[in-house]
This record gives sequence, C-alpha cells and structure tokens, in this order.
Amino acid sequence: MARDTLYFPASDRLFLEPYLPPKDLALSGADALPFTTLTFATSLDSQLALSPGARTVLSGPQSKAMTHYLRSRHDAILIGVGTAVADNPGLNCRIEGAGGYGGDGLEGQPRPIIVDPKARWDFTENQKIFELARDGRGKAPFIITAVETPPADKEAILEKHGGKFIRVGLKTTVTGEYGLYWKDVLKALAAEGLGSVMIEGGGAVINSLLVPENFEVISSVIITIAPTWLGRGGVVVSPERQFDGNGSLVPSTRLKNVMWHPFGEDVVMCGNLKV
Amino acid sequence: MARDTLYFPASDRLFLEPYLPPKDLALSGADALPFTTLTFATSLDSQLALSPGARTVLSGPQSKAMTHYLRSRHDAILIGVGTAVADNPGLNCRIEGAGGYGGDGLEGQPRPIIVDPKARWDFTENQKIFELARDGRGKAPFIITAVETPPADKEAILEKHGGKFIRVGLKTTVTGEYGLYWKDVLKALAAEGLGSVMIEGGGAVINSLLVPENFEVISSVIITIAPTWLGRGGVVVSPERQFDGNGSLVPSTRLKNVMWHPFGEDVVMCGNLKV
Repeated sequence: MARDTLYFPASDRLFLEPYLPPKDLALSGADALPFTTLTFATSLDSQLALSPGARTVLSGPQSKAMTHYLRSRHDAILIGVGTAVADNPGLNCRIEGAGGYGGDGLEGQPRPIIVDPKARWDFTENQKIFELARDGRGKAPFIITAVETPPADKEAILEKHGGKFIRVGLKTTVTGEYGLYWKDVLKALAAEGLGSVMIEGGGAVINSLLVPENFEVISSVIITIAPTWLGRGGVVVSPERQFDGNGSLVPSTRLKNVMWHPFGEDVVMCGNLKV
Repeated sequence: MARDTLYFPASDRLFLEPYLPPKDLALSGADALPFTTLTFATSLDSQLALSPGARTVLSGPQSKAMTHYLRSRHDAILIGVGTAVADNPGLNCRIEGAGGYGGDGLEGQPRPIIVDPKARWDFTENQKIFELARDGRGKAPFIITAVETPPADKEAILEKHGGKFIRVGLKTTVTGEYGLYWKDVLKALAAEGLGSVMIEGGGAVINSLLVPENFEVISSVIITIAPTWLGRGGVVVSPERQFDGNGSLVPSTRLKNVMWHPFGEDVVMCGNLKV
C-alpha cells in the first residue's frame, strides 16, 4: 500500500451520501449534464488561500481524507487553469481501495479536468499529474479549451498519457462576458461518458458558478470551513452581488437542504442551491 | 408576558456554557478587564450585512433567541457607533425571565455600551433604546467617547434615562492609528462594575479586535454562520493581514478549543483566540 494512502471511515461517509452522485447514475439523452458537486474549503473569512498561488493549509487531516473520498465518488474532478498553474496538483484519489492505493487498475480514479480557455497552462511531463499517470496512480487530464489548435507538443504529452484537449466554443454569457459557458463545458464532459464531476476550484471558477444562471447546473455543494481568519487580501469566495427586480440588493443565494457536520476542528456544510 | 419574549431551551444552553462568563465572576484589582465575548452572525462569505446600514436577516429564529440568551449572561453589550446610527437598536434582552419579560426590575438586562469616539451619534429620546428604558425593558446606554465636553442636550437625555457619557482618552495604537485603545475601553467598563461584556459589532469594531494585539482582551468568540452567500461588496468580517518575522503572509488567527454546533439552518462556532 502506498505510504500516502488515506483512510476515510464508513461512519463519516453517511452524512455525505445524500449529496453525492447516486451509485447507479446513468446519463440519458444528448442534453444530459453530469451530476455536479461543488466542493472547497475556506477560512472563516471565506478565503481559499492567503494569496493567489499560495498553498494555504486550511483544513485538518480528516477533511483531506474526505476530499479524496469525494474524488473516488466522481467520474471527474475539475479545476481552473489558475489552480493548475499555481499548485502543480496531483488531482488523483489516494483513498484506500482506489487504483494505485490498494485497488485494481485505475478503479475509483477520477478523470482530472482542467478548464483552460486560452490553453495557457505551460506543462511538461514532469508535472505531478503526469507522474501519477505513468505510475498507475491517476488518470491524465482532459483540458477544456477554446483554442482551435492547441500546441502540438502539449497535445503529444497529453495523448502519450491518455489525456487530450477538448474544444468548447466561447459565447457571450448572461452576465455579458465572452467566455466558456458552464453548460457547454459540462455537456462536453457528459459526451465523454463522465456522469459526475466534482468542481474543486479555484476562486474564479467557484465565484463564476455561484450566480443564478448557473445554479441549475450544480447538483450539490459541500464546503469545509476551518476555524481561522486568513486576513484581508487573499483569494475570496464571494459571488457577484445580485439585485432584485426593483434594483434592491439581495443575497446572492441561500442554500436549501442544509446539513452541518462538525469534523475535527472544521465543519462541513452540505446543501443544494435554490434554483 | 411581552409578546416579543424569546425562549431559549435549557438543552441548547449547555454547549455555550464553557464560553460564557462564570456565574460567580468577580473582578479583582484596578487593572482587571471584564470577561469579553465577541459574538456576531455572518454569511458564508463572512459578511454581516448586504451594505453598511442595511438590516440583513441572516440567521434563523433559534440564533436570535441565542443572542438574547447571551445578552442575559453579560453585564454589558457593546456596539460601535456605526451600528447605533444605522440600526436604531434596542440592545435589550428579551429572553423569558429577563426584567420586563417576566423577570423583576431590570434583572438580566445588560447595560448597552456604544463606542462613539467623536460623539457623533445624533440621538433623540424617541430612539428605541430610550423607549425600552422608559418602559422598564432595558437599560439606558453608556456612551464611550473621547470628546471632552459632549453635547449637553445629549447628556441630558442620557442622564434622564440612567445612562451617561464615559470619557476615554485617545492613544496611538500598535498599528499606528490614533484612536481608542480597546484595553482602555474595557478597563473603563470594569471601573463601572461591569464584569462581563458581549461585543456584538459592527464590522469596524469586530475587525479591529481580530488583530494580535487585541487577542488577549477577548475571552471567547461565538459566531453564527448562515447558509447564504450575500455577494461581494457588503460589510465583511476579515481582519488586517498579518506577516511573520520574515515578511511572509500568515493567517491572521486560528482559534483554539473550537466547538461547532449545528443550530437549525445555521451553525454556531465557539472558540478562543490563540494569544
């Protein structure tokens, strides 16, 4: 067994179950979207990190094991390019029983998805994610991009490891920005047979999802809050402010079906967005 | 019994007890500080309100009853002048058994403290806080100010209702600002025989306390978090960023003795600041 294998006891799995993709999940129809779980950890002041690119340890060991358990329950895990550039992330699943961690083949290993509209992630095959793929401890990434012809050398590295670029066109979004449309991204994943996706960050990705026009694509939200204040100026999770029909400021969103679960020093909140 | 009396069941009181002033609390010595509880409710994005002065209902009815129970357990409750101006607050205790709510006299009614260095709160005796005092449902406020001679008409209103101005001198603080020094404010309260104080807000007061030089004056922290994102631009709780001896950014503070208590739709976190 790999020395960095993580254990997540069955007793802790129960409270998460109502917020996870059903085990017998099957996508149906050309317009089907994956079951999408939005999950991240913040400080009390709703920050993911002290600064963009800083690796900030927020939550305790139990929360880390939970994250890897959640990864084992999704076909894909998704991050934005900013996080890929900053963190050199492994994006695999180290829970006991996953492929490479006591399991067969790549069983339970999610497909890493990097959303990189301009194909700016400048990776080599020394990146942790490719090392893990070569080692049989994770899958190579699919990179969602709007670039027509991504760099050939990058494509070669991806394909050598079993990954690829997936092209998704840009659109003007409801908020007037020209960019990727979350529904298009998620449909592209469904088209690859990925029935469930866990969206992990970073700040730009999370904030872009927490606006009303995207609520319908998020199946559940699982947040860990650590008992620390990072202090002003870090990477904040806080969506665009929203106004009602009369131009009055209103809360961006309130969650429903909320469950709080104290977890070591942290708390985990599960819920659904109100559509 | 007043129609707006609040009930807070004994079963819910237990988890709070380790974080509250001891019932037999006695101040000793001229330098004694009160037992100081910092308490407030935020959204998931660490905001107290949608905008300065906006009354934003964040937490559920149970949390409201909890706040009034906490008030009954402190000799004084303190807010900044910004909140006094914006909210026209009552600052009394409506828990069953408090004076005016089934109890005798002003039993269990805390002393409202308004921190108003420049004496800019422009109140009349129609303010809710004075109405409640006339009604036997709360105490008149003590106003902490640095002004040598506060306006005589204001002083008359205060004294008529049993309140007063308390003068505290300005100092240059550790962070280089010229202002009230929290220790001086709290000592002035102790000198009035107030052995415990619950600090409720607003944003400026809370953020000014969550910096290392003030950790020692905070005995405990009780925070309610509601499952809603308000959206960027509201009143944020997030302290000044902190750097270590090498100039590296570090978390402002981490709490110790942390307890999370799910409470209706909200969660309550109790803890102590690490000095």
